[in-house]
Amino acid sequence: MNIDTERLRRDLQENAAFGDVDADEGVGRTVLTGSEADRAVRERFVDRLEAAGLDVRVDAVGNIFGRWTPPSCDPSAAPVAFGSHLDSVPRGGIFDGPLGTYGALEGVRAMQEAGVAPARPVEVASFTEEEGGRFGVGTLGSSVATGKLSVDEALALEDDDGVTLRDHLERVGFAGSDAVDPAEWDAWVELHIEQGTRLTGANAGVGVVDSITGITNCEVAVTGEADHAGSTPMYERSDALAAASEFVLDLERAAEELATTSEAAVGTAGRGTIEPNARNIVPAEVRLQLDIRDVEHETMDRLVERCRTSLARLERNRGVETSISRYRDSPPSRMADRCLAAADAAAAARSVDALRLHSAAMHDTANLAAVTDAGLLFAPSRDGVSHSPREWTDWDDCATATGVLAETVRSLASD
Amino acid sequence: MNIDTERLRRDLQENAAFGDVDADEGVGRTVLTGSEADRAVRERFVDRLEAAGLDVRVDAVGNIFGRWTPPSCDPSAAPVAFGSHLDSVPRGGIFDGPLGTYGALEGVRAMQEAGVAPARPVEVASFTEEEGGRFGVGTLGSSVATGKLSVDEALALEDDDGVTLRDHLERVGFAGSDAVDPAEWDAWVELHIEQGTRLTGANAGVGVVDSITGITNCEVAVTGEADHAGSTPMYERSDALAAASEFVLDLERAAEELATTSEAAVGTAGRGTIEPNARNIVPAEVRLQLDIRDVEHETMDRLVERCRTSLARLERNRGVETSISRYRDSPPSRMADRCLAAADAAAAARSVDALRLHSAAMHDTANLAAVTDAGLLFAPSRDGVSHSPREWTDWDDCATATGVLAETVRSLASD
Repeated sequence: MNIDTERLRRDLQENAAFGDVDADEGVGRTVLTGSEADRAVRERFVDRLEAAGLDVRVDAVGNIFGRWTPPSCDPSAAPVAFGSHLDSVPRGGIFDGPLGTYGALEGVRAMQEAGVAPARPVEVASFTEEEGGRFGVGTLGSSVATGKLSVDEALALEDDDGVTLRDHLERVGFAGSDAVDPAEWDAWVELHIEQGTRLTGANAGVGVVDSITGITNCEVAVTGEADHAGSTPMYERSDALAAASEFVLDLERAAEELATTSEAAVGTAGRGTIEPNARNIVPAEVRLQLDIRDVEHETMDRLVERCRTSLARLERNRGVETSISRYRDSPPSRMADRCLAAADAAAAARSVDALRLHSAAMHDTANLAAVTDAGLLFAPSRDGVSHSPREWTDWDDCATATGVLAETVRSLASD
Repeated sequence: MNIDTERLRRDLQENAAFGDVDADEGVGRTVLTGSEADRAVRERFVDRLEAAGLDVRVDAVGNIFGRWTPPSCDPSAAPVAFGSHLDSVPRGGIFDGPLGTYGALEGVRAMQEAGVAPARPVEVASFTEEEGGRFGVGTLGSSVATGKLSVDEALALEDDDGVTLRDHLERVGFAGSDAVDPAEWDAWVELHIEQGTRLTGANAGVGVVDSITGITNCEVAVTGEADHAGSTPMYERSDALAAASEFVLDLERAAEELATTSEAAVGTAGRGTIEPNARNIVPAEVRLQLDIRDVEHETMDRLVERCRTSLARLERNRGVETSISRYRDSPPSRMADRCLAAADAAAAARSVDALRLHSAAMHDTANLAAVTDAGLLFAPSRDGVSHSPREWTDWDDCATATGVLAETVRSLASD
């Protein structure tokens, strides 16, 4: 099987021309659901799927599927699917998403040209709004496809201007009516850029992901008392910022300790607000948004527990009131052993150095892993940069990882 | 000498009617420099000064002076002055400022009615924009009168809408041309509400302030590195919020330690901003605004030094970059011994329990203490509340403190 590097490069560069942005360095794009760039990106992708002889369907939230049903296969067998997404963050890069979608299409074309005769249908998929750039809900399309979010809830989501997903999809002509259920797929494989430096550090051509970390988000509130910063003696204060500072350090320490046994464990207070936030008033309230991740759900639970312990201590020692709300909890996802085995064998067959690793970022594959056997491959990212016009993967590296993707799917679809 | 409680009450309540605000609890007002309320407040005050036979002058920044030159005095002798301010913070109270200005006028009337024959002229003063509510510069009028800020700089100050102090004063007819130099005063005494609970706690009728704390403001910046909150391991982070949290606790600890020897010492991080302030990004930069006060300038210096030490340690231990800019340093002010003695004697003569204390809030008197002998008296504040419609001092308490004020000035002006 031969991957046509030039054809893949042309597909990615022509796709990148839609929604392209000015950048001092690199090549960037903005493709948000329902924009004119999104319409163009989708229409071109459908054209290319059809040019490869695939049967295209679009579901209610604009997910696009192209099925290859060669004579060798049992058309009623559960298909093997692969793909990714085509949307971007604002001023994002040109590989995050498109490499996996056009890589899957290139994989089909490579199989066709090599005379591969799969026993199962092969499905190429592009999921809507993976980035959450328009509606703030990441992995939106795959959440609906896998039943995690209802179609009606999704279509009623509103962007910052009050425009719904339904309106956006209708405007660009991608409010489809086809029903495609990934739970009926035999397996799923996604190729994505790493967005990290482990592959380049190890000089590996492909990453074989064994798990995707779960994410827990919490909102923490620490409430003290607003007082005059001059006339309130230190011993009479209930300073919410000082208390919250102890909490931030407790969270950091707990995450560092748990990371000694589970390296993927991280805990971050990334967002915070102070009230009244005036130089001469003792802070009355601090609210923090936490992001807690690990490949072990239990570690995440322990980290949240450590947060509760810290807050209880602050209530006792500092007279503040506190609250913690764990408003999101996405458990970690394990990739299927047979997908891992197929990917390892594919890399070996194509003489590509493969590195086993976990993904700390969310991907559509996390949703798919809940309903079918799933695999996730990474291509190297230069300097680990993503979500930026400086995001880059060399064309040869794109082709190498796409070759492993195609071989993995060929193998999974062969029986 | 008899203070007319009813007349004082009427003066304060009629003054409070200008700029009055709706409040669920209490009585509030908003009087910002140059507003229609400010015009009314000023015009009424001038009327009342003239009704008492005082000779009114208005200087270039709208400070209002009313001089009583009775036959008993040497008109060329250095006058004894007293007063306060008439502006308010937005939605402020009705005593903060007006008690001292109308209290001084009531003091003159009481002296006149009691046949007091001072050896020196007696001056009543109301300073412009003590609160900084319009231009963000506190004690503006007294800063100009005492030469700390030039007239031209002050008149060129712009409010949030780009309107200058000059425009505001011209509009309300208080851009005066009289020159009054407090450095030529023999002494100055201000009566103000306490804005604290020490007087009510001690059941004292008047506070005799011995010093006004100095204020140092610093801006601190802690710069780490923005990283993905999922894919950046704990040990690879340079988290600006975690580092800033250590700093906040260091500042708190240092202030607590210094407060064991200098009770007035306080250090507050009241305002902070986080960049980029996103839940899933390790914080790249935190900026904090510090407020450091004490009655000893050396303690303030030591507290700033402790801040520098903390930041240097964070640079070494956490790999962050830091900076600290001490952009304001107003030294503490001592009240003159002869003013303190006159106030103590006045309280004793009127059988009022007096409490010696310091002021942790800034007052015009801090500027006046730099150019003449100054004294500051406090009246009790219910629950210590100020800058709020809930600010309250009972009318009898107003009269009691005004009696001590009048007696203090009578004594100072007697030779």
